[in-house]
Amino acid sequence: MKDAGFDAGTLARLADVIEARRGGDPQRSYVARLLAQGPDAILKKIGEEATETVLAAKDGSPERIVSELADLWFHCLVALAAYGLRPETVLAELERRAGTSGLDEKASRQAAQKAAHKSALGELPVRGTDG
Amino acid sequence: MKDAGFDAGTLARLADVIEARRGGDPQRSYVARLLAQGPDAILKKIGEEATETVLAAKDGSPERIVSELADLWFHCLVALAAYGLRPETVLAELERRAGTSGLDEKASRQAAQKAAHKSALGELPVRGTDG
Amino acid sequence: MKDAGFDAGTLARLADVIEARRGGDPQRSYVARLLAQGPDAILKKIGEEATETVLAAKDGSPERIVSELADLWFHCLVALAAYGLRPETVLAELERRAGTSGLDEKASRQAAQKAAHKSALGELPVRGTDG
Amino acid sequence: MKDAGFDAGTLARLADVIEARRGGDPQRSYVARLLAQGPDAILKKIGEEATETVLAAKDGSPERIVSELADLWFHCLVALAAYGLRPETVLAELERRAGTSGLDEKASRQAAQKAAHKSALGELPVRGTDG
Repeated sequence: MKDAGFDAGTLARLADVIEARRGGDPQRSYVARLLAQGPDAILKKIGEEATETVLAAKDGSPERIVSELADLWFHCLVALAAYGLRPETVLAELERRAGTSGLDEKASRQAAQKAAHKSALGELPVRGTDG
Repeated sequence: MKDAGFDAGTLARLADVIEARRGGDPQRSYVARLLAQGPDAILKKIGEEATETVLAAKDGSPERIVSELADLWFHCLVALAAYGLRPETVLAELERRAGTSGLDEKASRQAAQKAAHKSALGELPVRGTDG
Repeated sequence: MKDAGFDAGTLARLADVIEARRGGDPQRSYVARLLAQGPDAILKKIGEEATETVLAAKDGSPERIVSELADLWFHCLVALAAYGLRPETVLAELERRAGTSGLDEKASRQAAQKAAHKSALGELPVRGTDG
Repeated sequence: MKDAGFDAGTLARLADVIEARRGGDPQRSYVARLLAQGPDAILKKIGEEATETVLAAKDGSPERIVSELADLWFHCLVALAAYGLRPETVLAELERRAGTSGLDEKASRQAAQKAAHKSALGELPVRGTDG
């Protein structure tokens, strides 16, 4: 599950595919249709999928949690595309907050263990200004 | 931005760090606190961060969109941890829907171009049962 | 706009109409359909309409704000019906929090002015246990 | 529960009280504080309380459903105030959609029974342009 590179570029690749759909036939491509409808249609989906994630989680269904989170992340990628942004930027922001940039996985894991009580991640949700 | 492996494991590494926080001191670690409070506290944050993403997007602020999506994805990772799930499973589900599993980035990009009119991705939001 | 009784029973009357739809033909009645689909379908709509309210508000469109809030409140009434509850109970809870129960409108207005600095309403969002 | 005027003006009265708080001391009044913070703070609360309503409903707790809906409606009232709008306008829109404007409660109830199969309310969520 955690072999290096498993999710290397999954989000980036999906962003590429979404980008390739832009301007496509709205009749044939859901992504082309969403992008053609504009940001509100996409943002509405984010609210919707967030709610569905909550419903799935409350039902304690692992399959549905995974499925709804996939929906949610997917629509986040479409939203990023709508605003000319890339998922790599969000991942970089997450790395920056966790203070793990440039660390390989092993170092990160060690750091995680050491950091248990002086945590960078404890502050993760705090917004930076250099993101 | 798209060099191979840029986000290799970013989400997986963060999931490891979150896992390492479990059972830590709620006074010192935001993650330990959230996990100790239980699923509702985490799910509430997902609804909250989804709304903040919408607000940031409506303001057209790239920095805030990135920051709020980082918040949203981070809390999604905490929710996954709360239910004993891994982000790799969500990424695998996204890969499965896009039909790009096992493809390298170049092949994926070619496929994306070819597939424009017989699209797997057009069906992305459809839920699978084998996720 | 504020003549006594303007909204006397609007929510209660709508709740009656919703109740009358229960068990009706899902092909003909949206409410019958929602109630037949079960709570999740209704709760999903609450998340959806809340997001649409946010979108309308960010666009600063009074017509859409009113329209989306009507949608939101309407689906709240359907949710109450799904759980065998009445809007009067929610209104009573709001009255209880504001400390205006049993007061006529004039007294309420006076109280509101007097209370500006020792406010019951300041504590409105605090949950009671006797609701 | 349904005696005439029970909720006559509950929402309107609360809107008056909220209005009276505007410009008050943010240290003492939650409403004054929210209004001073501006629309985003209020809209964020709508997303938050919608999510909490969903959580309460999934737990099947009548008390919490009522309490969270009271929170949600209350923050809707504050949002209306922030945009210079009144709850009466939302209630009028709901009346208009249900086609019960100008009807007294008894007529409304009769209409509700008769209308079961040619329903105005079946179309409630459809947005009007004359709201």
